[in-house]
Amino acid sequence: MKLFPTLRQLSRFHHLINENFKIKCLGRLASARNFYISSSVDQNWGKNKKHRNIKLNIYFDAMANPDDEKILAPLRASVKEQGEIVRKLKSEGAPDLDVKKAVAELKHRKKILEDKELSLAPATTFDRAKMEDLLKRRFFFDQSFAIYGGITGQFDFGPMGCAFKANLLHTWRQFFVLEEQMLEVDCSILTPEPVLKASGHVDRFADLMVKDTQTGECFRLDHLIKAHLEKIASDKKTSQPTKNECEDIIIKLDGMTKDEMAAIMQKFNMKSPLTGNELTEPIEFNLMFGTQIGPSGLIKGFLRPETAQGIFVNFKRLLEFNQGRLPFAAAQIGNAFRNEISPRSGLIRVREFTMAEIEHFCDPNDKSHPKFANVRDTELLLYSACNQMDGNPAQKTKIGDAVDKGLVANEALGYFMARIQKFLIRCGVDPVKLRFRQHMSNEMAHYACDCWDAECLTSYGWIECVGCADRSAFDLTQHTQATGVRLAAEKKLAEPKVVDVVEAAPNKGPLGKTFKKDAKTITDALTNLQVSDVEGLERKLNSDGSYDLTIGDQKFTLTKDMVAVKRYQKTLHVEEIIPSVIEPSFGVGRVMYAIFEHNFKQRENDEQRTYLSLPAIVAPLKCSVLPLSSNVEFAPFIKQISSELTKVDVSHKIDDSSGSIGRRYARTDEIAIPYGITIDFDTLKEPHSVTLRERDSMGQVRIPLSEIATVVHNLAYSKLSWTEVEGQYPKFEQQEAKGV
Amino acid sequence: MKLFPTLRQLSRFHHLINENFKIKCLGRLASARNFYISSSVDQNWGKNKKHRNIKLNIYFDAMANPDDEKILAPLRASVKEQGEIVRKLKSEGAPDLDVKKAVAELKHRKKILEDKELSLAPATTFDRAKMEDLLKRRFFFDQSFAIYGGITGQFDFGPMGCAFKANLLHTWRQFFVLEEQMLEVDCSILTPEPVLKASGHVDRFADLMVKDTQTGECFRLDHLIKAHLEKIASDKKTSQPTKNECEDIIIKLDGMTKDEMAAIMQKFNMKSPLTGNELTEPIEFNLMFGTQIGPSGLIKGFLRPETAQGIFVNFKRLLEFNQGRLPFAAAQIGNAFRNEISPRSGLIRVREFTMAEIEHFCDPNDKSHPKFANVRDTELLLYSACNQMDGNPAQKTKIGDAVDKGLVANEALGYFMARIQKFLIRCGVDPVKLRFRQHMSNEMAHYACDCWDAECLTSYGWIECVGCADRSAFDLTQHTQATGVRLAAEKKLAEPKVVDVVEAAPNKGPLGKTFKKDAKTITDALTNLQVSDVEGLERKLNSDGSYDLTIGDQKFTLTKDMVAVKRYQKTLHVEEIIPSVIEPSFGVGRVMYAIFEHNFKQRENDEQRTYLSLPAIVAPLKCSVLPLSSNVEFAPFIKQISSELTKVDVSHKIDDSSGSIGRRYARTDEIAIPYGITIDFDTLKEPHSVTLRERDSMGQVRIPLSEIATVVHNLAYSKLSWTEVEGQYPKFEQQEAKGV
Repeated sequence: MKLFPTLRQLSRFHHLINENFKIKCLGRLASARNFYISSSVDQNWGKNKKHRNIKLNIYFDAMANPDDEKILAPLRASVKEQGEIVRKLKSEGAPDLDVKKAVAELKHRKKILEDKELSLAPATTFDRAKMEDLLKRRFFFDQSFAIYGGITGQFDFGPMGCAFKANLLHTWRQFFVLEEQMLEVDCSILTPEPVLKASGHVDRFADLMVKDTQTGECFRLDHLIKAHLEKIASDKKTSQPTKNECEDIIIKLDGMTKDEMAAIMQKFNMKSPLTGNELTEPIEFNLMFGTQIGPSGLIKGFLRPETAQGIFVNFKRLLEFNQGRLPFAAAQIGNAFRNEISPRSGLIRVREFTMAEIEHFCDPNDKSHPKFANVRDTELLLYSACNQMDGNPAQKTKIGDAVDKGLVANEALGYFMARIQKFLIRCGVDPVKLRFRQHMSNEMAHYACDCWDAECLTSYGWIECVGCADRSAFDLTQHTQATGVRLAAEKKLAEPKVVDVVEAAPNKGPLGKTFKKDAKTITDALTNLQVSDVEGLERKLNSDGSYDLTIGDQKFTLTKDMVAVKRYQKTLHVEEIIPSVIEPSFGVGRVMYAIFEHNFKQRENDEQRTYLSLPAIVAPLKCSVLPLSSNVEFAPFIKQISSELTKVDVSHKIDDSSGSIGRRYARTDEIAIPYGITIDFDTLKEPHSVTLRERDSMGQVRIPLSEIATVVHNLAYSKLSWTEVEGQYPKFEQQEAKGV
Repeated sequence: MKLFPTLRQLSRFHHLINENFKIKCLGRLASARNFYISSSVDQNWGKNKKHRNIKLNIYFDAMANPDDEKILAPLRASVKEQGEIVRKLKSEGAPDLDVKKAVAELKHRKKILEDKELSLAPATTFDRAKMEDLLKRRFFFDQSFAIYGGITGQFDFGPMGCAFKANLLHTWRQFFVLEEQMLEVDCSILTPEPVLKASGHVDRFADLMVKDTQTGECFRLDHLIKAHLEKIASDKKTSQPTKNECEDIIIKLDGMTKDEMAAIMQKFNMKSPLTGNELTEPIEFNLMFGTQIGPSGLIKGFLRPETAQGIFVNFKRLLEFNQGRLPFAAAQIGNAFRNEISPRSGLIRVREFTMAEIEHFCDPNDKSHPKFANVRDTELLLYSACNQMDGNPAQKTKIGDAVDKGLVANEALGYFMARIQKFLIRCGVDPVKLRFRQHMSNEMAHYACDCWDAECLTSYGWIECVGCADRSAFDLTQHTQATGVRLAAEKKLAEPKVVDVVEAAPNKGPLGKTFKKDAKTITDALTNLQVSDVEGLERKLNSDGSYDLTIGDQKFTLTKDMVAVKRYQKTLHVEEIIPSVIEPSFGVGRVMYAIFEHNFKQRENDEQRTYLSLPAIVAPLKCSVLPLSSNVEFAPFIKQISSELTKVDVSHKIDDSSGSIGRRYARTDEIAIPYGITIDFDTLKEPHSVTLRERDSMGQVRIPLSEIATVVHNLAYSKLSWTEVEGQYPKFEQQEAKGV
């Protein structure tokens, strides 16, 4: 490891670093934190400027600088103190409610610590309103049905957002499905009730709310109480004891039951904050959208709240497709729906969203991963449950070490965490704004046994973009119980196992004679008897000469000639196991939002000129084609270039509008087009040539017309770097006119 | 045109024809109909065996052979006779009901003709049960939630179906969105009621049904009546007059109103066919799935029944994105939902389906298309409304001629029809099982002014796979009326137009003094007056000195000092137009189904060995990798080939299971993998080599290991033909073991 403590030292290598990356580093360096560059880079560093795949691993030191640490120390201590109380209560087996309250207090202290940490981070120039203006103006996305007044929590993606999303999903498919040979499926959205009853969503997927009794307006209960008590606490006329009580309740709110919240509503006489009307009792509001399937109104269904269940109910077919072998992974990209009570925060909390989910099925006793060795040395910023309880910051850790230490539960989980990080960074997530946070035991979903969220730092704080959970055998077990269809796999035993079998052997002849049409029922019942029942039957036959078999309301008296008891040994070569499931689950809209924020930039010295530095792989369009003017002689060149770009699969936009070239560049920068071809008067001369401009550096080179499509293709598909292009072709010096 | 009347003549060119195509031709030739090969092919025919892009256009003569025609002639005459009655009734302005009944009779006769035509077609060996078995067994798709008993009309796509679908959609995006630079959007599925009220779906998107009063079981009313009357008519005890009546009703059913059907139910005393219970009165059952958006239950919403509306409500944003210019096209791929009363026919009629829709917005007075010249000579099999009324068959027509003659309404519509045909054939639709059928005026949707369906011939008959409609300005007009937001474009006038303006000019001072807070309302009302009202105001002021302005319930008396009338001339450079919309709308599941049927094949002399001949471009996987045995020495070669195929984006499947190589080929043929690489003992020797096998011909060649990935890539992406590969590499002669 080599330490670059200053901006100056790193800046010497600027010309080698991908422009995109450089800017990110600069932003971070300005914060005066330390950077490490891993040694694998040092070896190639500067020796070979044309090296194609420089592995550039820059890690920032997760520890803030010493001054900051002084400020944070008491807050860290406060978290740690409470973390120890929680641990103690748990180890003592304290009442559930006491633990809940202690955890709520712990969360509160963690929040104070995190807010302070964020406030100490260097002031960024990020301006959310400005970014939102760009995204709306250039129709990346916008509110759905706006001409009808719009619906909160629903968004339409315009041409640029849609192409970005399609490219992101295409990359996801290449990166996960193709490279890992996963079984991708595409399942129904409308889901009948019994499926979601078994998965736990019908009973547990709910938020508490209250309604205005007059207007029907709904409020999320925890939000309402918090706002109400904060208002009281901030009122000068409120007595100190009441203030304390309010603050106490706010802290504990997260762990409260429905009845406790109802009592608080009553005590503080809460009314609708909008109308002053009475409110209803708290209602458990299920977040799924309900509907009826078919015309009879008898089949209740829901829009799926996650895509995962579609995979679980197809488990048998998928296992069979995989020729019965474990492990294998299935994947699905599709829409899911949650009827949020009051959605906000743009793309972060919406009612309709695209998910990309993977379910990796493996032996519960062997969660190793065949490709784990490939990622062993990948460093991740891990924010463990333990560190969260101790008030410590997230720590850079090699995933191999994390799995060895048991911090991350198993290789399969660790493998996917490393792959998730690689994918996110490739698609434009800023590596220094990415961490993996472990769920604390109290926040884990009912099905999970370990869970790490990939969180991205945005202006809304750290937001969960990808969940990576070990769901154990929960779902397959639930669906097996609900349907009677065994969702299990057969595992070959290391060595054959000999087991003793005791079973009742019906004698069909005498049974048929005596019981006629009931004989079949009796035979079936006998075959299904448990070992203990068979032994009881044997004793009874031996002692009394007969046995009374009860089936439902009926009793059948069986004699020795009708049934025998057989004992023998059987050699088993396989055992039945219910696989465990490791689930990486991507919230596509959230990933997109994080990438937008991490790539929204302003030109130096011109903050009106904003742009999006999306990596070419996900950029909506790869290239623009700009004739310098409307001169008719340019037309055949536009046509030729467009046709050649289409042939090599380079999506592009022709902008032959009348604005200055600088203004048009600025327009293409706004929609994240990484490369721009300009046709000018020199293009008309032989040998024909054009200029090619790179978005982030605004550098330009002159390239022969015959080579341009191939060069842009290679740039767009990461087969060539801009530095290489600058090395191969003459620089084009003309100053770019300032965008107006 | 050159005519190849016999199989023998065409077969001389077999070695030149893409294997896939050849088989289709052979199948068709066996029917003894005539084939044409267009002259553009003849020129290259045989001269240059390595010619890369042979344009192979084979058209079959739509006229059946003379013997068949003798049988069909009376049926054609019967249709024609009725067609003329319909024309006459319409031209005479006969009562609506009479026209409807005549049209119903026409449809009935058409159906008889079509059934006879199909019955005369050569017997195919297609076996639907066998194909469905393959698709289910290899999990292309299967019923959703089967372990819970399943829901009719819902299907899950397994790994192979999902990959086929993804490839089909990727090709669609390349073919339409990228090549035509369309604006792709991705809009919300949950749609608030007012949007679908404006589009007509809330009021008109319904089927009639009746319910069993005891069990709640639902029946589509027209299906129920038809089945009931057919049963009566086929009963030997039924009198001839009753039989005639029943048959008469069945014919006219399609045009009947709710009340007419109710009367028939009563007259024939219809009960539930399942239980014999009473039935309810006919109910109009809306086919949209309803739900509530948000927790209050106050915002009624539906799952969208088509993706089109999402584009229409975004029209303003899209027009702006296109810098205000017409024409432009928007596109959307996404799910839509229809709550069918009794879905059946597999993928053909489902409750949840993927659509790919294009909305091409253009000037209503200029529906030319800039690229129409490119498709002018494309021949389509057109089944015009006129031919349908005259009992004539579909006719091969150049789309240019069809538009010139006015048969197809305009260039834009014709352009898309030609493109749709090219796309479908590229993706595996059999060109001889594809026609474009024009809607007759009575079956046109409420919004359309011309509509042609691309229909594919399947074992279910001709099914609509792609609709191509001119929706005129219907939707934009409806949404403009519902919202008050003008969904219109500005069109530059050929020359500026001078118009006379007459307007009321309020005088704010005196108005404010007299009317205080009402002054603003009055000013607004005056500005919005129609020309005729302004002239009335002027006359009144001149005659009486005052004018009574009525706004809502209020009356305001205005005097000459408060308002003047201004007359002047204004020069207009633009006019406002509401664009027309041409809509190609793809039912993705139906297209997939047609491709499945058209590509389901059996090996000659081994009908147990079935396979799918999907074109490589849409095949779920492009290549298989098969080691001859489990010999450990093969392992590094498998790994190397797999890694190199991944690098060049070739999706593949390694099958190292223990079956014989022939058996494993048969397995990969079933899942439509077009190419197979086999690693055998010769591979171990230097220079390393492998065999490559082509699915349809089962031909094999020997290829150096170092070249294999590139060759397969080029084959998979149509940069190389199998014939070329066979020319370049030595044939591998070992006989393929028969699949067991």
